[in-house]
Amino acid sequence: MLERYLPILQWLKVYNRSTLTSDLIAAMIVTIMLIPQSLAYALLAGLPAEVGLYASILPLVAYAVFGTSRTLAVGPVAVVSLMTAAAVGNLALQGTAEYLTAAIALAFLSGVILILMGLLRLGILANFLSHPVISGFITASGIIIAASQLKHILGVDASGHNLLEILMSITANLGQINLPTLIIGISATAFLFWVRKQLKPLLIGLGLPERLADILAKAGPVLAVAVTTLATWGMDLQSRGVKVVGEVPSGLPGLQLPGFDADLWQQLLISALLISIVGFVESVSVAQTLASKRRQRISPDQELIGLGSSNIASAVSGGFPVTGGFSRSVVNFDAGAETPAAGAFTAAGIAIATLVLTPLIFFLPKATLAATIIVAVLSLVDLGALKRTWDFSRSDFAAMLATIALTLVEGVELGIIAGVGLSILLYLYRTSKPHSAIVGRVPGTEHFRNVDRFNVETCRQILTLRVDESLYFANARYLEDRVYDLVAQKPDVKHLVLMCPAVNLIDASALESLEAINHRLKDSGVTFHLSEVKGPVMDSLKRTHFLDELTGQVFLSQYAAWETLGRQTGCNHGIETRASA
Amino acid sequence: MLERYLPILQWLKVYNRSTLTSDLIAAMIVTIMLIPQSLAYALLAGLPAEVGLYASILPLVAYAVFGTSRTLAVGPVAVVSLMTAAAVGNLALQGTAEYLTAAIALAFLSGVILILMGLLRLGILANFLSHPVISGFITASGIIIAASQLKHILGVDASGHNLLEILMSITANLGQINLPTLIIGISATAFLFWVRKQLKPLLIGLGLPERLADILAKAGPVLAVAVTTLATWGMDLQSRGVKVVGEVPSGLPGLQLPGFDADLWQQLLISALLISIVGFVESVSVAQTLASKRRQRISPDQELIGLGSSNIASAVSGGFPVTGGFSRSVVNFDAGAETPAAGAFTAAGIAIATLVLTPLIFFLPKATLAATIIVAVLSLVDLGALKRTWDFSRSDFAAMLATIALTLVEGVELGIIAGVGLSILLYLYRTSKPHSAIVGRVPGTEHFRNVDRFNVETCRQILTLRVDESLYFANARYLEDRVYDLVAQKPDVKHLVLMCPAVNLIDASALESLEAINHRLKDSGVTFHLSEVKGPVMDSLKRTHFLDELTGQVFLSQYAAWETLGRQTGCNHGIETRASA
Repeated sequence: MLERYLPILQWLKVYNRSTLTSDLIAAMIVTIMLIPQSLAYALLAGLPAEVGLYASILPLVAYAVFGTSRTLAVGPVAVVSLMTAAAVGNLALQGTAEYLTAAIALAFLSGVILILMGLLRLGILANFLSHPVISGFITASGIIIAASQLKHILGVDASGHNLLEILMSITANLGQINLPTLIIGISATAFLFWVRKQLKPLLIGLGLPERLADILAKAGPVLAVAVTTLATWGMDLQSRGVKVVGEVPSGLPGLQLPGFDADLWQQLLISALLISIVGFVESVSVAQTLASKRRQRISPDQELIGLGSSNIASAVSGGFPVTGGFSRSVVNFDAGAETPAAGAFTAAGIAIATLVLTPLIFFLPKATLAATIIVAVLSLVDLGALKRTWDFSRSDFAAMLATIALTLVEGVELGIIAGVGLSILLYLYRTSKPHSAIVGRVPGTEHFRNVDRFNVETCRQILTLRVDESLYFANARYLEDRVYDLVAQKPDVKHLVLMCPAVNLIDASALESLEAINHRLKDSGVTFHLSEVKGPVMDSLKRTHFLDELTGQVFLSQYAAWETLGRQTGCNHGIETRASA
Repeated sequence: MLERYLPILQWLKVYNRSTLTSDLIAAMIVTIMLIPQSLAYALLAGLPAEVGLYASILPLVAYAVFGTSRTLAVGPVAVVSLMTAAAVGNLALQGTAEYLTAAIALAFLSGVILILMGLLRLGILANFLSHPVISGFITASGIIIAASQLKHILGVDASGHNLLEILMSITANLGQINLPTLIIGISATAFLFWVRKQLKPLLIGLGLPERLADILAKAGPVLAVAVTTLATWGMDLQSRGVKVVGEVPSGLPGLQLPGFDADLWQQLLISALLISIVGFVESVSVAQTLASKRRQRISPDQELIGLGSSNIASAVSGGFPVTGGFSRSVVNFDAGAETPAAGAFTAAGIAIATLVLTPLIFFLPKATLAATIIVAVLSLVDLGALKRTWDFSRSDFAAMLATIALTLVEGVELGIIAGVGLSILLYLYRTSKPHSAIVGRVPGTEHFRNVDRFNVETCRQILTLRVDESLYFANARYLEDRVYDLVAQKPDVKHLVLMCPAVNLIDASALESLEAINHRLKDSGVTFHLSEVKGPVMDSLKRTHFLDELTGQVFLSQYAAWETLGRQTGCNHGIETRASA
């Protein structure tokens, strides 16, 4: 029991010197990678740079204690930082104390929501984000993030909550373009794209082992940061208009519970819920990918608790919402991390950096951080998914397109809410007209098949309808319409058999419809039967009066129905000749 | 084509003298019943009494032209009148011209929405109102309506949008109770309850035929209206504080298109949508019940057009939202109506009443109308449904209880929206953990059964999982978790077969999960196979790259999978002994 909620107890027991060495090496590599990322994502969220560092210390320690993935690396990530900016930007101006307070409160609320979901085992809620919606949302977020960082590359002022606003604001201020900033921005972006695409093959060509080449290529941003910072300092570019990170308080964050503020919390609640679910879905998917590579297991419900405590740890130490990141987790995994202790060591590394390196960050150009972000998020943009989804399913495509369009035009929160709503409605619509078929007997067998596809025996007085879907509110009335239409079309019918081998569930609405069908068929002189009802469905029907009122019988097999009713009606079986051409 | 949109063309062709006689008799009876109802429901909607009459003339003619039910009687009904009061009460004060304008605009919008839904064949949307939600909503509405009419019975002032507000407002004003009003109110209520419960058996005991006794019992309200009106006039009760209907303009309503008012229409849009759907669901269910008694058919999509044109006709002639009513349709049916012409004749009857009877209505006490409403709506209250639903399904019960509670506490609109949302979420939750089973071979056969229930043959290197549900976004990740857990638990497994005989649909999220399962199993050295995939599902998989990337095969039958993989692995089949006790 204790081990379930404290996964650290499991791996700590078997911790040894070799695991320690692996974890330490991985932690060093991840630390180097995480420093520019943390600064950049704080910038993206509209927060001071040091907040990004704070969000990369305690949250990692909390995840090491409560998380179930051995290799997940937690911290600020792009999409969640954008959602933070959108949520907090509605309530306060960037740069104010209120803005920071709201971001911290958002992390705290999100942590509480995640832990509650974990304790209530509601990890399943994340399922309601269908894949097309999350994929469309991430693509649109990537586009918005890249657009929002353009201003740092150009050195102009701009703002806006959606793509159009951002682009118009940048266009209006194009006159402000700062040349030194633009040179730094463009060369950093070009360098990082080159690193991403070409450095690894180059290093392998030079004879480096693949894993090392991979890790070195991931360290590209650190080099960009170092070079542009040195250049800005050496050439005094700050006085020529290049915006830099500036004074960053050195020293570790103080620990403090966020103050209770009912108004603020209420305003942030929906945003916190959305951030929690989006962050959880992303994180769990990364954790699952890595775990299965080593045949390890993660527990989605305990992951909620792990991520929740990370967010509370972030809030307590002055940070903003965090979750498991894809690229850093892969680096952690590839660098050989074996236990969550690697995360704790990374935290220590970032803490040391916060103490030691902050003076060096002063001259780091914001354009370099923006370049880091742009290169990272453009890899999230996957417009090809639109084509693939279109080929596979039109209704999934509609949900994806709506999510992308609304996220770009109306902002992240409305985008994701509309996407979720639409994918649910489309699913209900798809199942609201279930596949059903009138069936007849394959001559000489006990099998029954669709009369439109096979040459089968039927009988004028007996009509058998097979439904290939669970019966529930979205299709209950369709079933009624179908039955009444059939009976109105075929005046000779005396018995209607509903064949239920694919009915996994009957809900109260469908029960009501079955009762209505029973009564209305009785009024028109038709006896209503069921056949091949599954065990659990039969059990639930037995708890109602339906079986008492049923005018006909429940047959175990369709063949039994055919035999019994055929005898009763003295039916002359005729072969239907409607076989498909 | 023309006949589809103008059902009148179908029945007019075969209209003859005998049909005419039947329709005329039914129309007379329904007219007598409809006059007090129309006045009462206008009162309930917070509108002048004559508006109820206006809503019972042209709408009936429009339905006779466009409707598909032979016997449905359209007009003002209780629940829709309450929803009208709630929607319009937010925007204007009762008794003002704005209030009437808004009610007319609501009827117009609702008509437009219904016709659009009909043309787009979206009758299916009504399905999203699950039975527990609609039943809970009607019960709660009945309680609110009865409570809201108490003030007329007591003769006190009161107002409020939900049960608590109404009851507190009445309690606060109990000092105002008017004795003559109370006497009229209580005796009318008692009389009407007696008529409803006891008059019919009494008349039958006196030797009257059952149908006549039934119709006479339904005319009880007319008697109550006549007697209390006479008493009020004769004893001059108006001067002793009995509130009466008062001056009602005599003459037919003028025809006028409602003016376009973008602000007003936008404010009413959601309300109009809810009223349209609730009204449609009620009306279609009545129409279907009556049609099946005579083996007739109705067309739900054309019904939307019929009800939509009724509402537009209502708006054009100064009325408020209407729909098909249960009790009046049953009377119409029992009185022998054969075609919608009976509705047109009823309209003529009400028109004559509007011209002739309005002076007589002056002294009609509001308490009598309130008694009519209370007796009518209390028959809608069905608290027993809570118990029945509890017995059948806990999640349907939760949706019903939430709808009742929220409707009573927060009002009709929030109540129904929350109910719909909750029933969708609960359905998704129920299907998010689909039934699945590890299966093995029944020795000596080609059948495969659950290893937990049967003595079956299995093989350590081959794992077969059968899923009994369509795979879609709500359960896609559950399937992944289940597969990863199984593989992590069983290190010997080399082949995993997913057996899909009950999978009717695979959406893009589930496809993504299958791809992830394929890749991750590959990473852990397990080959992934499918078996018994249905034709349409296979077709959609063929449009993707999934089958190219699949590490294993798609087997037509599970037996083929068993044979092929058994030979490959040189498997020694062992009998699983986990058969249930």
